[in-house]
Amino acid sequence: MSEKFAAVEIISAKRDAFELSDAQIDWVIDAYTRGTVADEQMSALLMAILLNGMSMKEIVRWTDAMINSGERMNWSALSRPTADKHSTGGVGDKITLPLAPLVAACGGAVPQLSGRGLGHTGGTLDKLEAIPGWQASLSNAQMLAVLKDCGAVICAAGSGLAPADKKLYALRDVTGTVPAIPLIASSIMSKKIAEGTGALILDVKTGNGAFMSDPSKARELAQVMVELGERAGVTTRALVTAMDVPLGLTAGNALEVRESVEVLAGGGPADVVELTLILAREMLDAAGIKSALEPEEALKNGAAMDVWRRMIRAQGGDPDAKLPVAKESHQILAEESGEILEMNALAVGISAWRLGAGRSQQGESVQAGAGIEIHAKPGDSIKAGQPLFTLHTDEPERFERATEALDGAVRISDSGEKTQRLPLILEKITR
Amino acid sequence: MSEKFAAVEIISAKRDAFELSDAQIDWVIDAYTRGTVADEQMSALLMAILLNGMSMKEIVRWTDAMINSGERMNWSALSRPTADKHSTGGVGDKITLPLAPLVAACGGAVPQLSGRGLGHTGGTLDKLEAIPGWQASLSNAQMLAVLKDCGAVICAAGSGLAPADKKLYALRDVTGTVPAIPLIASSIMSKKIAEGTGALILDVKTGNGAFMSDPSKARELAQVMVELGERAGVTTRALVTAMDVPLGLTAGNALEVRESVEVLAGGGPADVVELTLILAREMLDAAGIKSALEPEEALKNGAAMDVWRRMIRAQGGDPDAKLPVAKESHQILAEESGEILEMNALAVGISAWRLGAGRSQQGESVQAGAGIEIHAKPGDSIKAGQPLFTLHTDEPERFERATEALDGAVRISDSGEKTQRLPLILEKITR
Repeated sequence: MSEKFAAVEIISAKRDAFELSDAQIDWVIDAYTRGTVADEQMSALLMAILLNGMSMKEIVRWTDAMINSGERMNWSALSRPTADKHSTGGVGDKITLPLAPLVAACGGAVPQLSGRGLGHTGGTLDKLEAIPGWQASLSNAQMLAVLKDCGAVICAAGSGLAPADKKLYALRDVTGTVPAIPLIASSIMSKKIAEGTGALILDVKTGNGAFMSDPSKARELAQVMVELGERAGVTTRALVTAMDVPLGLTAGNALEVRESVEVLAGGGPADVVELTLILAREMLDAAGIKSALEPEEALKNGAAMDVWRRMIRAQGGDPDAKLPVAKESHQILAEESGEILEMNALAVGISAWRLGAGRSQQGESVQAGAGIEIHAKPGDSIKAGQPLFTLHTDEPERFERATEALDGAVRISDSGEKTQRLPLILEKITR
Repeated sequence: MSEKFAAVEIISAKRDAFELSDAQIDWVIDAYTRGTVADEQMSALLMAILLNGMSMKEIVRWTDAMINSGERMNWSALSRPTADKHSTGGVGDKITLPLAPLVAACGGAVPQLSGRGLGHTGGTLDKLEAIPGWQASLSNAQMLAVLKDCGAVICAAGSGLAPADKKLYALRDVTGTVPAIPLIASSIMSKKIAEGTGALILDVKTGNGAFMSDPSKARELAQVMVELGERAGVTTRALVTAMDVPLGLTAGNALEVRESVEVLAGGGPADVVELTLILAREMLDAAGIKSALEPEEALKNGAAMDVWRRMIRAQGGDPDAKLPVAKESHQILAEESGEILEMNALAVGISAWRLGAGRSQQGESVQAGAGIEIHAKPGDSIKAGQPLFTLHTDEPERFERATEALDGAVRISDSGEKTQRLPLILEKITR
């Protein structure tokens, strides 16, 4: 049978809601990576997977096939246990920045291979690239050296890691096939398993600013990913966490670095500190590390900050450099007095994106200084005329649409009604 | 919004089972025809349409958009009413060949724009191309001239007719998105409506050798196509007809021309004659033609044959030329004695295809002489050792796989059990 017909047969099987065989999955992922299966064939298959689903057996094999499309990292040269964290992405989610050095300070090795942002949620690399001189791309040997020296490395995943996923991810982005649990889970987990971490904590966001706004879908995604990790021998746990309100008081690249450094200095917004500490404890526990130094103490005594500074320097960055500031800023004031009841995370994310903090297409550049400072959050009281947000951008023509995005995003009331936020941690998922 | 995002928005809407707006349908068909919407985006949309369906309103607009992607033919220069027939394709379905000249002989004008075959069912143009000298491609002016002169023309649909459908058809073929009623109906009807016929009879095949093997699906397809035709001002009726057993006693290009000429000469197999007459009466009735000459008479008195000969000559063919004969033949004998109870049409179609009568990919050539002669059919009695089939091909290495396709295709019993065939006409669908 010609390869063309093999692809049509596999697409038709999933279209008709049959389970794909191991051989079919292995073949189609390999043939797509090699370019024998065309984009238009794979996108039809992806839509059929999105609409007809996949069994756990299929998802495991699909993930394995993506891992096998590239190299697997190996950290056996390290004396410390490895632990990593992955977040499904949220507005103001800068947790990786303080978390990686914190876990390293407490005895873990954190090989954090990260990505760039697309849409309304930022990417870890975009944030760190706001630091003058900092380089995201490292060779495998450089990664190992930084990890040995600092205990943590945050860098770009190399092109050798799950190349099938890179191709699939770009295709899903333009074909409306992103929101499928089997595809999201296999995309994340193929990279994390190939990355070679021994323990993995997944932060699955839910609420209006998250990719999985429905908590039951977030739970399902978390369960599938935990199962994939555990089957591959990675100690994996997931927390389903709140993304109904932005995390912390900043959204934007340099702004979030500044806030992360505040946390590492023992300060920072309570929600960012709390989530960082919870995730750090989970990572240490999953990696089997009984640290003499508690994470809370490592933030207070400067141990985490020391790792951060060494880690930034190791990748060419200057931790003491002044961070970029946008050329223009614009304040948005509260129109009413009362308690802030809601602050829509998605709206804040879209506004920051429109200010230039995010990109619309892969490969676009982002502004380091663009973004939003949040002056008050749900639960806080505010008076009409007091500042709610400060918007930052290098291009003032962006203010109009960024401001529009915030229309109706904040609800203030003096009726005595109290804010009803999601709890920071909704659920913990273990195998 | 960039065009990329407009496409993703439309794909996502159908993925989430929303009804597409008129503007969305117009835009996506036009942008795909122009090449702005990529194949991988359209195939994802097609799979979403296949799995989530389309409302009648959407199908009407989708069809209109395909018609509007190209030119519309106009036969107002003719003095006779136009009538056309379309078959969804079956094994041994050569009805167009005797039917078009027959209806012309009875006073209709038949602008039959046809296609080539793909897979186990043959194409009308492939069959006629077995006639030495005959040319499928005509300019619009040549079509009109043949139609005026002969009352019927069978030729290739020009590239200006529904170009969106040509692109979509090729894409569906390689992406597993063929069997979707909205896509099949709009593909057929966009070409037939753009072709400009005033009346249209649809022959929707059902049974194992048909594309729509399930009669309830065939009925649904027929209903959608009749509705599309009527809404576009074409008097449209559909017959759901049997394709559980091959039609007539031949499957293959030159073999089917020979059988068609037998019918035009007043002979031929009873089922081919019966279906030809039924369809001719429907076409004449739908076109409002009260003919002085009955179709049955026009076969007997040579009037239909006269039109056939003139029509073949007008396109460069020699109606008196000897038809091509395959170089090699091979008989398959009955293994048992008794009544033939079943003869699987799909198996016969696949066997003829493997002999070289059909193609696997668009653009492949076919053998004029290849195919199958059927010596006995369900209801007939046969003795072990008598010939059941004669296989023909230029390439004797094809006999083995062609014979394999016929394994189990014929059931013979001497138990007194009687054959249970589908009735030739299962149902007539009008608006």
